[in-house]
Amino acid sequence: MRILGIDTSGPVASAAAWEDGVVRAEMVLNTGLTHSQTIMPAIDAVLHACSWTCADVDAFAAVAGPGSFTGVRIGVCAAKGMAHALAKPCARIHALEALAMQARGFEGVVCPILDARRDQVYSAAFCWAEGDLPQRVLADAAQSLEAYMDSLPPEGRLLFVGDGVGKYAPSIRERFGSRALLADELMGLRASAACALAARQKQAWMPAGELTPIYFRAPQAERERKERENGAG
Amino acid sequence: MRILGIDTSGPVASAAAWEDGVVRAEMVLNTGLTHSQTIMPAIDAVLHACSWTCADVDAFAAVAGPGSFTGVRIGVCAAKGMAHALAKPCARIHALEALAMQARGFEGVVCPILDARRDQVYSAAFCWAEGDLPQRVLADAAQSLEAYMDSLPPEGRLLFVGDGVGKYAPSIRERFGSRALLADELMGLRASAACALAARQKQAWMPAGELTPIYFRAPQAERERKERENGAG
Repeated sequence: MRILGIDTSGPVASAAAWEDGVVRAEMVLNTGLTHSQTIMPAIDAVLHACSWTCADVDAFAAVAGPGSFTGVRIGVCAAKGMAHALAKPCARIHALEALAMQARGFEGVVCPILDARRDQVYSAAFCWAEGDLPQRVLADAAQSLEAYMDSLPPEGRLLFVGDGVGKYAPSIRERFGSRALLADELMGLRASAACALAARQKQAWMPAGELTPIYFRAPQAERERKERENGAG
Repeated sequence: MRILGIDTSGPVASAAAWEDGVVRAEMVLNTGLTHSQTIMPAIDAVLHACSWTCADVDAFAAVAGPGSFTGVRIGVCAAKGMAHALAKPCARIHALEALAMQARGFEGVVCPILDARRDQVYSAAFCWAEGDLPQRVLADAAQSLEAYMDSLPPEGRLLFVGDGVGKYAPSIRERFGSRALLADELMGLRASAACALAARQKQAWMPAGELTPIYFRAPQAERERKERENGAG
């Protein structure tokens, strides 16, 4: 089984070619160029490295959010386009689950936080018990870091991962001290995690037409329209 | 500070461009082609993605072993060649330390094992305490898996990583049961770990001429010559 993974949901873009439990090729890019410039060449590079064409792929796994609205749409649309053209299924990958997937074996609570701007983080929490997938501890939310930290368990170690860590490191350290471990540069989200999740969640694959972004709140334009309408009402 | 990381010590080849705590680009390849075919194009791809040339790199970090004799020499020679031509320093990266580096925050003992053939594994053990680097628990060795497992602590969780895990999974599970956690496909050695270690061990950078492979035992040709000489003596 061959899966092409795509992630453009955050500041880093990546593409991965996965086959039967092996990452055959992966390209990760954090160069300051826009995802619309980098992701198709990155997909091309990993397919070329494997001597595959798109037609050799059995499923297209896109990190569907939460994340940057524009970024999420770039990756989701790339996956939808290829999958639709070839009548292949898509996997809709949750960014916070994918981050937890990469922290296999951590004995405390894995705390993925993504910078959602407007003084909020996209957040959830997971733990690794038995089995091949992280288990959910807290539901998805877009909330302040304070509210998120209030909801975490009172004891045990916490591993903070995701692009919110850099921005919020001082607040996390002040609150939790040595209970909190902060991800280093090796723990950023990668498309290979999307492939690994997709392979383990085959029952949730869907036709390209059903693949939609995962949004925790309405886009800025919709919020502003609603505010205008309410203001005018 | 910009570091180019190279790993061809095992079955997977990778190159990474690292800048001031950020992985700018990384390419990972496990396509069945030889490392001598893949590594220079991979280096070229990550440099090109960053719009860097070799001259923009401050240090060249090569995974120097233990590992495949031929593989180790390909990566070490690539780093030496570029560093020598540009009079830049090299970092000599230990493969088992780099694997432990990728398991940040694991609360038990990280057990990297590489398939050394001849019914042996290249092995060591590390733990994550305070600080930014894994701490050594067991010295390097080329030994049987049984001897290695005998030397591990009698309690606590064990995270097995490295290319020996696939081959030896049944023996590890039989011996340790649920105490042992086996790495999944997301935990393979990556050149970005070489960069992260090099950045934290700047005092150990060396001129290109001093960069040598890390061997735990003599190459096959030398062993066979010695056996012939002993047999003739």
